[in-house]
Amino acid sequence: MRALIVYAHPDANSLTGSLKDLAVSALRADGHEVVVSDLYAMKWQSAADYTDFDGITGPDFMHASGTAYESGRLNADIRSEQQKLLDADLVVLLFPLWWFTVPAILKGWIDRVFTYGFAYGADIPRYGDGPLAGKRAMVATLTGGRAGHYTARGVNGPTDDLLFPLNHGLLHFTGFDVLPPFVEHSAVHLDDQSYNGIAERFRQRLDTAFTTEPIPYRSEAGGDYTGLTHPDGSELIPGLETPGTSGFALHVSDPTRS
Amino acid sequence: MRALIVYAHPDANSLTGSLKDLAVSALRADGHEVVVSDLYAMKWQSAADYTDFDGITGPDFMHASGTAYESGRLNADIRSEQQKLLDADLVVLLFPLWWFTVPAILKGWIDRVFTYGFAYGADIPRYGDGPLAGKRAMVATLTGGRAGHYTARGVNGPTDDLLFPLNHGLLHFTGFDVLPPFVEHSAVHLDDQSYNGIAERFRQRLDTAFTTEPIPYRSEAGGDYTGLTHPDGSELIPGLETPGTSGFALHVSDPTRS
Repeated sequence: MRALIVYAHPDANSLTGSLKDLAVSALRADGHEVVVSDLYAMKWQSAADYTDFDGITGPDFMHASGTAYESGRLNADIRSEQQKLLDADLVVLLFPLWWFTVPAILKGWIDRVFTYGFAYGADIPRYGDGPLAGKRAMVATLTGGRAGHYTARGVNGPTDDLLFPLNHGLLHFTGFDVLPPFVEHSAVHLDDQSYNGIAERFRQRLDTAFTTEPIPYRSEAGGDYTGLTHPDGSELIPGLETPGTSGFALHVSDPTRS
Repeated sequence: MRALIVYAHPDANSLTGSLKDLAVSALRADGHEVVVSDLYAMKWQSAADYTDFDGITGPDFMHASGTAYESGRLNADIRSEQQKLLDADLVVLLFPLWWFTVPAILKGWIDRVFTYGFAYGADIPRYGDGPLAGKRAMVATLTGGRAGHYTARGVNGPTDDLLFPLNHGLLHFTGFDVLPPFVEHSAVHLDDQSYNGIAERFRQRLDTAFTTEPIPYRSEAGGDYTGLTHPDGSELIPGLETPGTSGFALHVSDPTRS
């Protein structure tokens, strides 16, 4: 199979950098082809702007990106990343958690690559089907805080909820089967034993990336919601929710395994 | 009072750009001083990296940022934004919602300006107190989707939950009183009537920015959690939760007004 690792850390000698090297070697040892988008090394442009569209301007930024996509006029760096996504069977997003989400350079990869027409659009199914359906994706992230800040009652909020806009709003939206995230806390000033534990857990997740059960997000494309074209918006069909759930947990068919 | 508007849109003629101009004139008409950080016009650097630290490298990126902050060696553009924050009584973050969070250039403003030592650190109180306590902040954002995608049962998840990492994890974390966000959906291809409605609602929020009740987030600094230095992490004190709430709603003392 083919794996794409999208990696964002400013220091190749960081823990995140070490895990990138580990992911490349582990996936290759498992017989997969591996491509890495090392965003800092690529000096990836973060800010999405009209210079991406080869002179296409209006009528609005979103539709300008769609026009540029449809006519093959997106910047070459964007087209290259879109092709990597189309070629991949597995996408791993690997980054340190900065202010509870991705670093800006990775947000810039998302903003610029997931254009109108390519990733979403008026007639493109979403949440359970879509242009990237059939592929798997896994978020892998490290935090400096203690795990007890990220529990169900933890002051930061639960990691799964903090990652919902990314896992559900980007990856599930565009069709991916989204694997449970790989998250390690207290990932600063590690001794060898702590590092080896993290590395072993990550290797295990990579070795099982094609067999792990995805998060059981509900499917708009499959009829769990009133639907993209419903004039009032798309809401969960009454009665489908697991009793007692609310918030983001509504969108998982079995909240005990997300 | 003094207001800082941090504005991120690649097109000055966009709806977001119009609302920026409106915010400047409305706040000035109310007698406030207004400073704008127009991130695209400033060609703000998004990617946080070691070039921000005047040669300071180790031992890890987070602490390198703290060392650079403490020694006054952060890049001049970062120090300037930190001073704007310290000078402000009100901060408005104004942006289009891209993939359910801020555009990359605004994430880059957050990543680079909210450094260790300035915004957070081992001995700096958080969530209810902190370096930016006494100031107010308001998120103002526009989406292209219909409001019915963002309701309690909407497929995208509720806007308040999608904005929790920003409102709670950044703004409340660093001490701000966080106002309910200004959010407008279906903000594409507007006729004059729709635009005027949005503009009037935004003006009303700006006129009341110093009197609106903030979101009643719970306070770690005030003792609602086990606390930053608790060895197991910081969790909500048992019994404080509103019965029946879970997820992000746990962190609001009155979930009916967030």
